[in-house]
Amino acid sequence: MPKRIITLGEVLMRLSTPGHERFIQTHDYEVQFGGAEANVAASLAFWDQSVAHVCAFPNHDIGKAGIRFLRAAGVDTSFVFLREGRMGLYFFENGSMHRSSKIIYDRFYSAFSQFDGVGVDWTAVFDGAEWFHWTGITPAISEAAANLCQRAVVAARDQGVRVSGDINYRRNLWQYGKSPLEVMPDLIKNTDVIIAGLTDMENCLGIRQDDYVEACREAKRLYPDIRYISTTHRDSLSSTHNILSGVLWNGETLLGSRTFDMPHIVDRVGGGDAFMAGLIYGLLHKSDADALDFAVAASVLKHSIPGDANFVTVEEVDQLVRGENVGKLLR
Amino acid sequence: MPKRIITLGEVLMRLSTPGHERFIQTHDYEVQFGGAEANVAASLAFWDQSVAHVCAFPNHDIGKAGIRFLRAAGVDTSFVFLREGRMGLYFFENGSMHRSSKIIYDRFYSAFSQFDGVGVDWTAVFDGAEWFHWTGITPAISEAAANLCQRAVVAARDQGVRVSGDINYRRNLWQYGKSPLEVMPDLIKNTDVIIAGLTDMENCLGIRQDDYVEACREAKRLYPDIRYISTTHRDSLSSTHNILSGVLWNGETLLGSRTFDMPHIVDRVGGGDAFMAGLIYGLLHKSDADALDFAVAASVLKHSIPGDANFVTVEEVDQLVRGENVGKLLR
Amino acid sequence: MPKRIITLGEVLMRLSTPGHERFIQTHDYEVQFGGAEANVAASLAFWDQSVAHVCAFPNHDIGKAGIRFLRAAGVDTSFVFLREGRMGLYFFENGSMHRSSKIIYDRFYSAFSQFDGVGVDWTAVFDGAEWFHWTGITPAISEAAANLCQRAVVAARDQGVRVSGDINYRRNLWQYGKSPLEVMPDLIKNTDVIIAGLTDMENCLGIRQDDYVEACREAKRLYPDIRYISTTHRDSLSSTHNILSGVLWNGETLLGSRTFDMPHIVDRVGGGDAFMAGLIYGLLHKSDADALDFAVAASVLKHSIPGDANFVTVEEVDQLVRGENVGKLLR
Amino acid sequence: MPKRIITLGEVLMRLSTPGHERFIQTHDYEVQFGGAEANVAASLAFWDQSVAHVCAFPNHDIGKAGIRFLRAAGVDTSFVFLREGRMGLYFFENGSMHRSSKIIYDRFYSAFSQFDGVGVDWTAVFDGAEWFHWTGITPAISEAAANLCQRAVVAARDQGVRVSGDINYRRNLWQYGKSPLEVMPDLIKNTDVIIAGLTDMENCLGIRQDDYVEACREAKRLYPDIRYISTTHRDSLSSTHNILSGVLWNGETLLGSRTFDMPHIVDRVGGGDAFMAGLIYGLLHKSDADALDFAVAASVLKHSIPGDANFVTVEEVDQLVRGENVGKLLR
Amino acid sequence: MPKRIITLGEVLMRLSTPGHERFIQTHDYEVQFGGAEANVAASLAFWDQSVAHVCAFPNHDIGKAGIRFLRAAGVDTSFVFLREGRMGLYFFENGSMHRSSKIIYDRFYSAFSQFDGVGVDWTAVFDGAEWFHWTGITPAISEAAANLCQRAVVAARDQGVRVSGDINYRRNLWQYGKSPLEVMPDLIKNTDVIIAGLTDMENCLGIRQDDYVEACREAKRLYPDIRYISTTHRDSLSSTHNILSGVLWNGETLLGSRTFDMPHIVDRVGGGDAFMAGLIYGLLHKSDADALDFAVAASVLKHSIPGDANFVTVEEVDQLVRGENVGKLLR
Amino acid sequence: MPKRIITLGEVLMRLSTPGHERFIQTHDYEVQFGGAEANVAASLAFWDQSVAHVCAFPNHDIGKAGIRFLRAAGVDTSFVFLREGRMGLYFFENGSMHRSSKIIYDRFYSAFSQFDGVGVDWTAVFDGAEWFHWTGITPAISEAAANLCQRAVVAARDQGVRVSGDINYRRNLWQYGKSPLEVMPDLIKNTDVIIAGLTDMENCLGIRQDDYVEACREAKRLYPDIRYISTTHRDSLSSTHNILSGVLWNGETLLGSRTFDMPHIVDRVGGGDAFMAGLIYGLLHKSDADALDFAVAASVLKHSIPGDANFVTVEEVDQLVRGENVGKLLR
Repeated sequence: MPKRIITLGEVLMRLSTPGHERFIQTHDYEVQFGGAEANVAASLAFWDQSVAHVCAFPNHDIGKAGIRFLRAAGVDTSFVFLREGRMGLYFFENGSMHRSSKIIYDRFYSAFSQFDGVGVDWTAVFDGAEWFHWTGITPAISEAAANLCQRAVVAARDQGVRVSGDINYRRNLWQYGKSPLEVMPDLIKNTDVIIAGLTDMENCLGIRQDDYVEACREAKRLYPDIRYISTTHRDSLSSTHNILSGVLWNGETLLGSRTFDMPHIVDRVGGGDAFMAGLIYGLLHKSDADALDFAVAASVLKHSIPGDANFVTVEEVDQLVRGENVGKLLR
Repeated sequence: MPKRIITLGEVLMRLSTPGHERFIQTHDYEVQFGGAEANVAASLAFWDQSVAHVCAFPNHDIGKAGIRFLRAAGVDTSFVFLREGRMGLYFFENGSMHRSSKIIYDRFYSAFSQFDGVGVDWTAVFDGAEWFHWTGITPAISEAAANLCQRAVVAARDQGVRVSGDINYRRNLWQYGKSPLEVMPDLIKNTDVIIAGLTDMENCLGIRQDDYVEACREAKRLYPDIRYISTTHRDSLSSTHNILSGVLWNGETLLGSRTFDMPHIVDRVGGGDAFMAGLIYGLLHKSDADALDFAVAASVLKHSIPGDANFVTVEEVDQLVRGENVGKLLR
Repeated sequence: MPKRIITLGEVLMRLSTPGHERFIQTHDYEVQFGGAEANVAASLAFWDQSVAHVCAFPNHDIGKAGIRFLRAAGVDTSFVFLREGRMGLYFFENGSMHRSSKIIYDRFYSAFSQFDGVGVDWTAVFDGAEWFHWTGITPAISEAAANLCQRAVVAARDQGVRVSGDINYRRNLWQYGKSPLEVMPDLIKNTDVIIAGLTDMENCLGIRQDDYVEACREAKRLYPDIRYISTTHRDSLSSTHNILSGVLWNGETLLGSRTFDMPHIVDRVGGGDAFMAGLIYGLLHKSDADALDFAVAASVLKHSIPGDANFVTVEEVDQLVRGENVGKLLR
Repeated sequence: MPKRIITLGEVLMRLSTPGHERFIQTHDYEVQFGGAEANVAASLAFWDQSVAHVCAFPNHDIGKAGIRFLRAAGVDTSFVFLREGRMGLYFFENGSMHRSSKIIYDRFYSAFSQFDGVGVDWTAVFDGAEWFHWTGITPAISEAAANLCQRAVVAARDQGVRVSGDINYRRNLWQYGKSPLEVMPDLIKNTDVIIAGLTDMENCLGIRQDDYVEACREAKRLYPDIRYISTTHRDSLSSTHNILSGVLWNGETLLGSRTFDMPHIVDRVGGGDAFMAGLIYGLLHKSDADALDFAVAASVLKHSIPGDANFVTVEEVDQLVRGENVGKLLR
Repeated sequence: MPKRIITLGEVLMRLSTPGHERFIQTHDYEVQFGGAEANVAASLAFWDQSVAHVCAFPNHDIGKAGIRFLRAAGVDTSFVFLREGRMGLYFFENGSMHRSSKIIYDRFYSAFSQFDGVGVDWTAVFDGAEWFHWTGITPAISEAAANLCQRAVVAARDQGVRVSGDINYRRNLWQYGKSPLEVMPDLIKNTDVIIAGLTDMENCLGIRQDDYVEACREAKRLYPDIRYISTTHRDSLSSTHNILSGVLWNGETLLGSRTFDMPHIVDRVGGGDAFMAGLIYGLLHKSDADALDFAVAASVLKHSIPGDANFVTVEEVDQLVRGENVGKLLR
Repeated sequence: MPKRIITLGEVLMRLSTPGHERFIQTHDYEVQFGGAEANVAASLAFWDQSVAHVCAFPNHDIGKAGIRFLRAAGVDTSFVFLREGRMGLYFFENGSMHRSSKIIYDRFYSAFSQFDGVGVDWTAVFDGAEWFHWTGITPAISEAAANLCQRAVVAARDQGVRVSGDINYRRNLWQYGKSPLEVMPDLIKNTDVIIAGLTDMENCLGIRQDDYVEACREAKRLYPDIRYISTTHRDSLSSTHNILSGVLWNGETLLGSRTFDMPHIVDRVGGGDAFMAGLIYGLLHKSDADALDFAVAASVLKHSIPGDANFVTVEEVDQLVRGENVGKLLR
């Protein structure tokens, strides 16, 4: 039995217009479920890791449909709670060429946003776990969610679990009265692996630097428990055509990945989460350099799949890393 | 140019599962827009009446899609406002036989619910109008919406406009701290035509009666401006099979309609609104008895059409009243 | 090798709204092809009869899609021609309960309507044939089509082929300047088997009678070559619920079929053509009484199938005649 | 933690034509998964019972999609195996009125049919279990599957687990050389609760009786461990209209349920499995009479839901038993 | 209240095959409405301009669905008429790579083509208007439509309204007996702004020139009221990949736009109309150079949107002109 | 009447996920039919060649749907047989960018695989034929199918029919106990035109060569009846972007085609069969060099069309060869 990975975060119902239709013209929304952390959980479960996700859903049939999504993905839902409140939603419109893709969030007042984690048996949650993953979206949603995240990080730390955090700074979210710099440092100081670009570092770690390696070194000075810092670089030539690469700073070196050209993107949502999942998987099972390559390749493959979730196998990711089978018709 | 009809109320985006799928199993939501009052507006506009609807939408593309729905229906949107807040939603699951149809509302915190009508040029709204229609849903949503409704009713009255109100009592809605009996009487006393069953009368007019005619008489005593009281009787043998009739009390007699058997219901949502629209149209253009017949026949036809809106012509309703062409293949 | 059946008539592209949507609200049309005579051809071919259809299509991809429909049905298209002109269309809206089903025809100026049959090698068409079928729609479309029909009937007669005609009087069609009574008698006098109700007889045979047997006798006096007259009786309780039966007058007796209750109609278009096909099949292979039963049962089954074509096997029709397997789940 | 229920049987991919389309005309198949025993498992899991299903899938993406179905339903897949062989399929065509619904099975040579259960840790499977459910489909598929079923029944018995078996005799399946009477008695003698009609009893228990109670008594004499025998009675007026009731013999009395009219069936596949699940749930949590009522009501609700699985809650079933909320629009 | 823009032209129902299906293989047509001039009207209305469209529809439900399209777009339909005749249609097949996109027009004998504008209150039409837009498609359809166009242009001129005309020469259309050079000059001489490439100039203005500036100068000499001449240059590398730019001659200089690469075209229909709408908007609100940039950017964005209509906001066009947000995921 | 072309091979039902969905996530399969040889037949019939296909289908509705596909394509089905066994299937998942397209075959135990051709009247099959086409898939499926292929090749040869064979070596198929080198030489020695790359030559002709011309010469030495050897070269940059060219060795020269860039592939399945059909058509109607160009251009166009079948006309292929109309919007 592998050791367990715990993830925490809101699961949203995603409503996407078909094809490249705009919100204003659609007659139909395709239903999926996703969320930055749940996408990581789904990837890891698809790769046969033992994963449990912590969150809350509204106590009605649509909330329960969200639970079905997690279960289908093979994620343990023992720590999923049904609470009062709305289902968090997001509406997605897939751009093309010069026209940007667009998301309208409708997640305020959700059941999750009112879930502060009081009463959760955190000891049970982290029993047998070796990794805990959170993102900067949770503390940005509400005071309750920030408290939830803090409780989880502390509990994980207390039980000796490795912690990763995807800083993922989004200006629009922080609306409940606290600034990121009031909240994030307490979370980051208990975190081993962070995903952060320079903007994230400035807004959430309080680090102003133009050079990524310098920024990493300063982060390590401020938050000495950090062992890895990583980020992706995405060059958005158009909505349909991006170029992607990643870096991983392991306290010593800044490792760089191969750069991938992605000229026919099917769906870029969840690309970052696919990278995060790949990195966790890689750091658990591979060398640092191989972990980074695996993470970037996983992210690249996500861009070819509709929906939030990255339905690719470890073997498919490894093949892309090795440059095998790309573009073939596999029979 | 016909005189104008003004309606007021929230427009919701309706997300329906296809066919008879349940929420828990669907992969797709069909998009429509509707709302008790907007459905009345759409019917009347479809019947070549001049109609303007008053409401507020969120200032984003999905809100604007709601405006498109009103425009497509031929409803004047000069008094539609874009405001902060969410888009009100409802999710609809079409039952069958013993399985009930189900609605999950997700309308709290909407742009409309925060719209109190301050700053609206009510004189302009009611300029040239001969009818104003509201429902008991609006005052049930929020304090702001209750104030909006009150402002509109008073302004209509001041400008000599006839007023109709569909009492439509829904226990689940009244959550902002006031009870219906604190709010509704002030609206009803300025209303000429009300749709109310015995339950509505008890909860919103404060009238406890078992006999409908007695209840109507008492309503008239308490609210002397009322000229008509009407309601439908629906016998729900199953989700697919209902029996429908209506009554209209005109201060003197309780007129009764023909009873319609509806054994293959396609979509019952908006059936009551179709009746209301039919009654307004009828009271403007027909005798009392013919108005009631028209209203019931309009409602019956609605049950054969998917979505909230009643896409039937005056001629089709008149034909059903006369029993012509029913079930034929019209070439 | 069985002897051949020849049919003649326009094939239209049918564009149907999905489910029970109305024209005014649809975003999508489902494509099928059909036509009174082609539906007969398709049924007979599905029952392993050798059938060739005579018609003209416009010389473009949509016309060719019409040919594909005939070929897929197993109908010989050796006598299908590509000509100038439009594709004839019809738009179909499936009613429900009190709301009638509706067809908007858009067939004027079609390639077929300009096809007069000059230059067709009629000897080749009827070589080896034992049955020719036409309907009253063809002579109603245009002068050219009337001439085409007349040419075909005469040629069939000359080659000793049995002829059936479905009178199918439709007032809306006769717009090119001739009345049915100027055109139809010349066709009917060369026809052995006709489908005609009392209205058809009045308008196309010039027979005014209230009693069907009397009308049949008079038809025989006027058109002595007629050997069979048949019709269906449809009681349209609603769009969804019809009751169907048929009669067949064989020169001596008026045979009557069992009456079928059809309370959940899926699609009634082509119901009459299914009857016609059943009658031709029956008269070729069965006794008169069995032919009638087969025809009615074939028509009943058609009402359970979407589209114009009657995809039921001889065995399925026979089983319904015998009352076997009805409503079972066949594994 | 509730005690566990174990089910065993093949999961098939179901490919259904949309609406009422026939196989011959469809351009599209809707995908679901199901199987007599897995449907029982899914119902019980939906009712918050702890359920594990034992089966084998082919080791490819479509097999894994089958596992996702079980997981989504909340069924424990710890004892689901990936093996060589095909995915078992069935194609489903939904009839209407006089036209029967039709299934084409394509399940031979499947991974499951080659799975004999050797090497399964049956002690682990039944650890903590209180109920095991099998059906007569498994021993009918292949020698391997019959051995699998026998191993499971014996192991369950050895560990003191209650056993139910849905006899479900299907003549078409028994093609591997053994007759039911060679195989079934060994399974039935270790079974406490059986679903069997008179035909099942004749073919699988060797009991020829016209009277159901007499047949039950004889079954008890032959297989003294049987405690309950139950069956449903379905009157198929048409594909769309069935009448359903059930009986339960508890060793003493033959209990009868209310009779339900089902005049607008959406999908009858899985109706029997819904009854079985309801009976297991009822026998675990209710009196005998209430168990039967619950089982029949669960089955009735299934007929309103597309797909194999019965997405209804315990509360919905209980409400139907009590006659509450039927046909209402629940908001 | 902004001054009004009037457009005139036929609205066609567009029936598109899904995805990249060919006419010959499709089972489904997606419904949209469009037309060169109505597309301009829809764009301008979407940009909050006050626009009224003049046209005629057939007096049936599909004609009325066309009106709904205009209303939904926010276009004033006060001058839309219901007349006898067909609905004009076009069938669209979206090409890919080396395979060309294809349109089959089916617009002859339409209600619009028989609409000559006699009886229209042109004074009312142009009351308060500042711009009138027509295209060379209208005079090409029929004698009646040519007369309609001529009446409108003269009336606009008489009321001091600026006039634009998109010459849009299509050889296939001119089938009613007149040549473009008999008809177009009378229209052009009353037009201020024309869209015309060298081919248009040769066929409709009678100008043979290889150099665009020379051609413009000659046009000005022949038609002195012309103030602007503009055209786009499209390099069709493949159906999916075009390169687009535009020029605008303002009587003095030939302004050139930026060149846009469009390597993943979603739908190019309406691209020229989007340019025309952008140019009108630009000439009303911006400098000449900015007007051209706006027009080209509007056209480029259209290529990313399914359907005829250009659902992009002024802000989105301006952002593309400035190179902002291109390819981003906007949250 | 043109001389006939005979093709032989299994027709599979293709079930494709919509868009770019993966097997693991789909809820829907789109239905098409295809097969290497049937695709050739369909192309040739679409190009007005007289083609008959020889194969066997299971005797149920889905088998008959396969026959409908052939008929619709205009292929003569006189030599299509209904036999016991399954319908062969394949599941198709369309890749994108770095993610490969994937096929899961499910064709073992099919009716075709058990069809050995005994009892077929081969004289009738090849009566009037001038070309017979087979592929290396048939002898790879089963012993029976290998015998069928051998019988057909010998019979064709005996009747003086030209024979083409697409070697199409697939390692996964050869599972019935014989190796390609035991079976293929006997087929190839009776074949005039073969499609074979170096791998095919090694595995099926026993020729190990690195140089294609040398390999062709050796093939000619070993199998002196071979007149043409041809192959395509596909450079798969990604699933969406391939580069294609072809060569044709005519016993003297190795002719090379133009190289086509295909940067937005819609569906590459059937690309090789489109080439084969083009080559047969070309060799029947054109010079060697023109035949090769036609074949490659036909294959290129196939990549723009969903499904197995290549719905392009001879004129469209010729236009691409001449570089005409590419990327235009044809009205």
